[in-house]
Amino acid sequence: MFSYVNGSYIDYKDAKVHIEDRGYQFADGVYEVFAVINKKIVDYDGHLNRLYRSLNEISLKSPIVKDAYLFHCRNLIRKNKIKDGLIYLQISRGVAQRDFKFPINIKPSLVITAKNVSMESYNSKFNTGIKVKTTEDLRWKRVDIKTLNLLPPVLAKQKAVNNGCDEAWMVDDDGYITEGSSSNAWILINDKLITTPATTSILKGITRTSLIKALKKKKIKLIEKKFGKKDIKNANEAYITSATQFVMPVVKVDNIKIGNGKVGKYAYIFKDAYMEAIQLK
Amino acid sequence: MFSYVNGSYIDYKDAKVHIEDRGYQFADGVYEVFAVINKKIVDYDGHLNRLYRSLNEISLKSPIVKDAYLFHCRNLIRKNKIKDGLIYLQISRGVAQRDFKFPINIKPSLVITAKNVSMESYNSKFNTGIKVKTTEDLRWKRVDIKTLNLLPPVLAKQKAVNNGCDEAWMVDDDGYITEGSSSNAWILINDKLITTPATTSILKGITRTSLIKALKKKKIKLIEKKFGKKDIKNANEAYITSATQFVMPVVKVDNIKIGNGKVGKYAYIFKDAYMEAIQLK
Repeated sequence: MFSYVNGSYIDYKDAKVHIEDRGYQFADGVYEVFAVINKKIVDYDGHLNRLYRSLNEISLKSPIVKDAYLFHCRNLIRKNKIKDGLIYLQISRGVAQRDFKFPINIKPSLVITAKNVSMESYNSKFNTGIKVKTTEDLRWKRVDIKTLNLLPPVLAKQKAVNNGCDEAWMVDDDGYITEGSSSNAWILINDKLITTPATTSILKGITRTSLIKALKKKKIKLIEKKFGKKDIKNANEAYITSATQFVMPVVKVDNIKIGNGKVGKYAYIFKDAYMEAIQLK
Repeated sequence: MFSYVNGSYIDYKDAKVHIEDRGYQFADGVYEVFAVINKKIVDYDGHLNRLYRSLNEISLKSPIVKDAYLFHCRNLIRKNKIKDGLIYLQISRGVAQRDFKFPINIKPSLVITAKNVSMESYNSKFNTGIKVKTTEDLRWKRVDIKTLNLLPPVLAKQKAVNNGCDEAWMVDDDGYITEGSSSNAWILINDKLITTPATTSILKGITRTSLIKALKKKKIKLIEKKFGKKDIKNANEAYITSATQFVMPVVKVDNIKIGNGKVGKYAYIFKDAYMEAIQLK
């Protein structure tokens, strides 16, 4: 397995960065995760454009030209013999003696990894659905930027796991769900799909955007509004979306069984609509 | 210059960690900064106890026994010929294939660096005082834990630098100063010292605690309460405290000149009281 590290393709086990890389000391960087299906990258343009938005929001310049990302991602798919799986790409502000302020004249660090993840593991998870635990949203106020400041969602996810769940839904001060620790959150009430609006309180998922587009074509009614636990109790179905989970049904939230506790009919409709709509590159 | 990296003393330029260290991908770790004065570590016990509190708060176990930290810190002081300077120490959850939930059975990573910083640079900065820029506090809700989630204070500090200032004071939703991007904040009004109470909204500085103890002996009146811009306008003096800045006078906050814009008499009293009170190890 190869990893791309600052210009070189390196054996994964030897892939290292300096201890004073600002990604390591300050979480001073941004990232993207791309799904790969049948050797092609899913919604590449959406992810790359969001990467550039994230870079811009934290005043970081891309260390390589925009076209080169696709070249390196495809190289890793080929070198690592990826069929279905994911590409992880992160850019940090680079290596400098530790100081909170931005260093001057250093090159940002770029690291890319790619690995296989079987579609079977996704499909089997889809067929049973997942369980969700709600937990307080402790994150900073700019989670619309896809940064490396991920300890709060890490702790949320682990709390879910400790409670026998697969994902955490984070709850804001007013009792509304913002999103999952690494996914967007959706519920379906009376044939209407509801998801949290894309403000600075959530990351605007590329999968979320693709699904919304796909559903428009299918004339499914979507309402972007906040929802809370009371709404979850009334939900017939629920889902998460993410680059690696695509559309994944949720069958339980805390002690609330969603619908009859089994994967609902809309889950299949939404998954199929999404899979039809994705752009492969 | 040597760095300690996971059990070995390594030349600084070769000091590296794996790209899938969770410190690099998730900011999943904690840290401490110790000042060194005349080859001795300042308030070592306070910092080490806070390190263990931070580890505990994020469910992370120390990779080495508690006594070994002092041994390694002293080794770096000796190997790097540190007279006055600082030690930086960080612990992350270790190396594992990227996944939000905690990995099982991996050893946390420990990295320690030490460098010289002259007391002259501190003293000359003290004599002129520093300028502060206020900015919105965007951080997460558990900044009482000293974690690697430092992008928000990095952005705050850079905003201060962009505005010709040395430090940022972060302002909460109610208009109160929480703390500096890497320091605690203090103002003095009518011979009374005021500093933000140590809740989950600030990091309880070791320097802050030592100064408070020192001032009790000197019978200086201290009030732990929130203060805002209105209070800053009434301040006769202002300061920041941190492990590396000790007590540092603030002579301007945004466009507000503090007192007569020069370092006030209490700044010297507080600095001397602090320097007398510190524990060296």
